[in-house]
Amino acid sequence: MSRPYRFALIGCGFFAQNHLQAWAEMSDVELVATCDINPDSAAAAAETFGGTPYTDAAELFANEELDFVDIATTPPTHRMMVELAAQHQVAAICQKPLAWDMNDAQAMVRAMADADLPFMVHENFRFQYPMRKVKEVLDSGVIGRPFFGRISFRTAHDVYSAQPWCMDAERMIIADVSVHQFDLTRFFLGEPDRLFTEAIRVNPQIKGEDVATIVLGLPGATCIVDTSYESSSDHSTYPQTFVTIEGTDGTVTLGPDYHLQVVSPAGVHEEQLVIPEHSWASEPWNCIQDSVVNVQHHWIHCLESGQTPETSGADTLRVLDLTLGAYQSLDTGEPYRVGSML
Amino acid sequence: MSRPYRFALIGCGFFAQNHLQAWAEMSDVELVATCDINPDSAAAAAETFGGTPYTDAAELFANEELDFVDIATTPPTHRMMVELAAQHQVAAICQKPLAWDMNDAQAMVRAMADADLPFMVHENFRFQYPMRKVKEVLDSGVIGRPFFGRISFRTAHDVYSAQPWCMDAERMIIADVSVHQFDLTRFFLGEPDRLFTEAIRVNPQIKGEDVATIVLGLPGATCIVDTSYESSSDHSTYPQTFVTIEGTDGTVTLGPDYHLQVVSPAGVHEEQLVIPEHSWASEPWNCIQDSVVNVQHHWIHCLESGQTPETSGADTLRVLDLTLGAYQSLDTGEPYRVGSML
Repeated sequence: MSRPYRFALIGCGFFAQNHLQAWAEMSDVELVATCDINPDSAAAAAETFGGTPYTDAAELFANEELDFVDIATTPPTHRMMVELAAQHQVAAICQKPLAWDMNDAQAMVRAMADADLPFMVHENFRFQYPMRKVKEVLDSGVIGRPFFGRISFRTAHDVYSAQPWCMDAERMIIADVSVHQFDLTRFFLGEPDRLFTEAIRVNPQIKGEDVATIVLGLPGATCIVDTSYESSSDHSTYPQTFVTIEGTDGTVTLGPDYHLQVVSPAGVHEEQLVIPEHSWASEPWNCIQDSVVNVQHHWIHCLESGQTPETSGADTLRVLDLTLGAYQSLDTGEPYRVGSML
Repeated sequence: MSRPYRFALIGCGFFAQNHLQAWAEMSDVELVATCDINPDSAAAAAETFGGTPYTDAAELFANEELDFVDIATTPPTHRMMVELAAQHQVAAICQKPLAWDMNDAQAMVRAMADADLPFMVHENFRFQYPMRKVKEVLDSGVIGRPFFGRISFRTAHDVYSAQPWCMDAERMIIADVSVHQFDLTRFFLGEPDRLFTEAIRVNPQIKGEDVATIVLGLPGATCIVDTSYESSSDHSTYPQTFVTIEGTDGTVTLGPDYHLQVVSPAGVHEEQLVIPEHSWASEPWNCIQDSVVNVQHHWIHCLESGQTPETSGADTLRVLDLTLGAYQSLDTGEPYRVGSML
């Protein structure tokens, strides 16, 4: 591939606007095409950010010379888009969730591997600035060997007005949020062996679960993933994730409003993390918007260096396994042996 | 029974000093005898607090006219002491744990029931002043129907110097601490249906588990009980228990240093709880020492009114079931169906 990397954005909906803004910040990339089944969305994106608008992805791939494609459509179309990319020998970064079915996800990973193409999933939580800081603390060794984690996302924010699909989904908050916490669990602590799920529906107007608690067992460690859309607190911290990791020598905590605390033999270190600013970012989404930039920088770095992305397609199969396994545990009332679906 | 209630204290060890101090505060009770297999302990207690010292409980029961007996010996002797009390038609309050074996515990409950005698277990956590305040908030209805709880006890306090048995116990922190959190779960949320345990040993110098995480399922609610003797924090809060209960209308939190927060439709209420003082109490134990007074007042109130104690022997069988069930879950890797041992 030669710079600037020529790319297309497929799927120009709500969250894709963050992708477009973040790509526009970056040198070394050139948006050559946009694509959306809604012609207005594709045209609006092209008008603001450049490139030729398409409504048909097959046509886009047939017409354009691309180095990579950024797929930001809905999950049911991801497999088709990735297989098109593989056929046209185009690298791909794809929004999460990769798929909701292990068979589809495995087919996508296989297609890209067989074509020997870089393939990354846009999993933003581990690319959030505060999560990178927590990981730095863990990697520094100051808290020793981690043995306990809690990764907590609890809010009373009305998610249903912006995401009405949440009301009708049979599988809701685990699929929507816990999935990210599972990836953070792996990022901070490694690969779980087993998990057990408790989940309930508190809001009587929805179909799925809106409060979920999953306990994950790892070699020598335990991690709680707890998630809720029904939890009142003294002020809104939506969409923040809180993290506690305890180690043999200390504890690192990411609390409300990006307050980082590290307790170690060296003492207590407190730090108010400041999320990097972007002209197009705004609260409360700024941390997530910044993470899009980080995801995209990592992708470009991998294209340049040949390094396998942290959240490669193959890696993300493990997140899907944890997610589907969490539902299996909920359905059966039994623990799930992680990896059984891989 | 006629006032003052004539009672004896059996077992005059470390924690029994708190019992003695608390009884000495109360009118309506008269210490007529003390008993310990160590004659010096029995004599020292009798000299300071009154009564005739014994080294043999059978002799004590044969000689003295008692309204009740306060049993503060070690668990293996509880059954014998309670059966002696039943034989002599003497009401009994007994230190926790009632027993470590369901058969023993059931035999004790049966013996006292057959003799139609009041029988209470000295389970102090739910009688701690901050726990009564949390319960008041829940009972007031301001946070609506509770659907989530976390009852957390995490410390790096060196418990091994004061309790060397902890180092050699095959079953350690669940038996030592989680047992109290199970009773608090029941106090705040009701009776669990099922539980699942993850536990590990972090300190390589001990035999049992020192970090335990148990997730409990209740009708329409989930509760996490997490317990650790290896957790560093910014300052020691030992021996405090932290509580979060979320309801459909709000959240009540008991945080470090007895800080109570209630979030409800009425707003945010913050309160620094002040533990009632006693001349003989001292930090960090003052909250627990005060709870002994509360336990004993409840016992006397039950003797007077004929009310069944909150933590009656029969009630406490459920705590033992949860505790033994938590170990069964740990041993089998499967969830435990609560009540299977009852």
